[in-house]
Amino acid sequence: MKTATIITIGDEILSGNTVDTNSNFIAQQLKDIGIKVRYIFTISDEVEEIVQCLQKAVEASDLIITTGGLGPTKDDKTKQAYARFFKDKISFSEELYHKLGAYLYKKGRSELLALNKSQCEVLSTAKIFENSYGTAPCQLLERQGKLTFCLPGVPFEVKPLIKDQILPYLKQRWELHTIYTRIVSVVGLPESLLSNRIEDWELALPPHVSLSYLPVGSRVKLRLTATGKDRKELEEEVDQLLHPLRVLIGDNVIAWSEDAIENILASILWDRGLNISTVESCTSGQIARLLTSVPGSSRYYKGGIIPYLTHVKSQLLGISEDLIKKHSVVSKEVAVELARSCRDLFHTDIAISSTGVAGPDKGEDGKEVGTLYYAIAKGEEIRSFDLYLPGLERNDFVNMAVQKIIETLIVWLEEDNRTY
Amino acid sequence: MKTATIITIGDEILSGNTVDTNSNFIAQQLKDIGIKVRYIFTISDEVEEIVQCLQKAVEASDLIITTGGLGPTKDDKTKQAYARFFKDKISFSEELYHKLGAYLYKKGRSELLALNKSQCEVLSTAKIFENSYGTAPCQLLERQGKLTFCLPGVPFEVKPLIKDQILPYLKQRWELHTIYTRIVSVVGLPESLLSNRIEDWELALPPHVSLSYLPVGSRVKLRLTATGKDRKELEEEVDQLLHPLRVLIGDNVIAWSEDAIENILASILWDRGLNISTVESCTSGQIARLLTSVPGSSRYYKGGIIPYLTHVKSQLLGISEDLIKKHSVVSKEVAVELARSCRDLFHTDIAISSTGVAGPDKGEDGKEVGTLYYAIAKGEEIRSFDLYLPGLERNDFVNMAVQKIIETLIVWLEEDNRTY
Repeated sequence: MKTATIITIGDEILSGNTVDTNSNFIAQQLKDIGIKVRYIFTISDEVEEIVQCLQKAVEASDLIITTGGLGPTKDDKTKQAYARFFKDKISFSEELYHKLGAYLYKKGRSELLALNKSQCEVLSTAKIFENSYGTAPCQLLERQGKLTFCLPGVPFEVKPLIKDQILPYLKQRWELHTIYTRIVSVVGLPESLLSNRIEDWELALPPHVSLSYLPVGSRVKLRLTATGKDRKELEEEVDQLLHPLRVLIGDNVIAWSEDAIENILASILWDRGLNISTVESCTSGQIARLLTSVPGSSRYYKGGIIPYLTHVKSQLLGISEDLIKKHSVVSKEVAVELARSCRDLFHTDIAISSTGVAGPDKGEDGKEVGTLYYAIAKGEEIRSFDLYLPGLERNDFVNMAVQKIIETLIVWLEEDNRTY
Repeated sequence: MKTATIITIGDEILSGNTVDTNSNFIAQQLKDIGIKVRYIFTISDEVEEIVQCLQKAVEASDLIITTGGLGPTKDDKTKQAYARFFKDKISFSEELYHKLGAYLYKKGRSELLALNKSQCEVLSTAKIFENSYGTAPCQLLERQGKLTFCLPGVPFEVKPLIKDQILPYLKQRWELHTIYTRIVSVVGLPESLLSNRIEDWELALPPHVSLSYLPVGSRVKLRLTATGKDRKELEEEVDQLLHPLRVLIGDNVIAWSEDAIENILASILWDRGLNISTVESCTSGQIARLLTSVPGSSRYYKGGIIPYLTHVKSQLLGISEDLIKKHSVVSKEVAVELARSCRDLFHTDIAISSTGVAGPDKGEDGKEVGTLYYAIAKGEEIRSFDLYLPGLERNDFVNMAVQKIIETLIVWLEEDNRTY
């Protein structure tokens, strides 16, 4: 199987200033075409470091992809490092310069600076892949059948370069194995209990199929990875292998193939023709964001309200001020009324509400940071839930709450499915 | 200066299944106490790989932090690798076992499994740091003054271990340098023009102060990193160094010290006692999420509506159906009316609206994917803007749109500041 090393070049990642999202994207894409990523390295913008890392990467893998270090400014040293490592020289490309001029003109810039000129300097033996969303081209260097791609670091330039140019090129160059991955989502069983329950099954898996446990919030994702020639055959084989799990843990599985919680919910809503709305006091739009991140979500997501002000809760959603005074905003009672009111306002089959204390300060009524109440209205029925997740940072609390809320809804919907 | 290597162990990162957020968090925290991260490595769950990587890390740095590979299931090999690398043996800790029992009991589990027992096996020479949010403890191995910390991989276990236990320990053990970082946010000047404008200033920076350019959306962040003994002295020095920039690029700077766009906006709103509301048809809650991710945001953020359904736009926000029919939902006119209506509904000083086509399909009226209209109401004045960002994936489009929208508001607010 062909293997890859991804190298991220940039002090902004090492200093924690920027989260590296490129590597994750590239790893996913490579897996899909059957290339196994062996290493992801993040190193600093220094020629010596880059050269050493290229050395290690070329020894360890068939494909090397570097991102970063191609900007027009002084902190970028990638090109010099490539020149040294590949014993190549950097030369100015008249053709790229003309193209860059046209690109910048389209963006409203008429003058080309000396700095821009430096972006048209490429390695003399490189094959050039054009970058339609930025000023630095992608370069491919090849030695002894090993391919090294030099990409810019900006994520929205990296994505189209990988998808539209590099993947098609690799598929054409190499006869690739297929890696087929299947995620099974399990709830209500902690990792250790789950592992105990399926131990015999796990030990009997064939050698070309591997299993991982990935805990996400209160869910555990079982990931099966199968390697072979034919995708369809692998798919069928994994289907067969999963069969015994239906007996062992069937009641705890909320999805046999989807991965992200929003996709699991989306496919259920879609299948059953249900629609949904949200009112998020505590999670402040995160449920809406997740639900609408799925393409085609306008078919089931109808709208939401983020009632930060108490006054909004009463005026827009008709929650009585007495109820709020009596129980406080962060309460089961208010969660229930919010869900009911949301369902009616948006005329949806389902409505979700959240209210809680994300911190860093306690709630107005003294409720602890990490307190969450949420309710789900489904048709006439409304159920309420509470959760206490102390010790988390504000955003982690919200993200975990959202995972749990959506999971609760899925479990309820699946329950219907089992009963009828 | 003390240096560190962060090692992430786990096939789920290499396969692109999970985004590694631990490394970013750890890198940030280490920088704050003056430890420079030299490398971030991501490697697979294999004993040989882990041993080799520990070797390289111990050669290159004073501090090594590994995350991942301590779960109770079979895919986790970190502990064996540590035992081999440190020539140590793994032994069962009665004390940890009792504590784990109490921890799980508190979480409602009465039975301890053999698997849980394995989590109480630690290296015999390790110093143990207790994990209050999970079942795997943190272990510290020390050889020749170099410190290697073995952490679990779950982010909400990693964060408190780092902040509450490891950082205080390191500060006490080592006399650390101070690294002071300052971010200056520049808009309206592409990286190459900016670099040209400040070239002489940049070349004159003293050797212990380094400069990086980090493009984010249409903003460029200049990051100055200064290293020395005393934080206050460094701060004053950087203040001085920034002075000439006020003349060179002052009009393009939207923040002289904040980093994230939501923090820049937050501090302006806070300073001027302004409040804000949002109506997000296209960005579906992401502006609200960003604004409320800042602690204390309830002082200025009052609420929002996500009017996915056209019917919601008319009923809740009073947008006339004729207007929508005439101009279509994705139009400048609707953006303006949404902002006006939002401002009035929430009684806020400022209201932001967005409407656009995030894809993957074109808008109902045939508008292209990547089309965005947004409007900002500030007091009586309403301004509208449009943007075309083709070729982006759905979520990238939303994230970029949100950056740009908030940036536009900041520029407007700064304009007021300059004029009066």
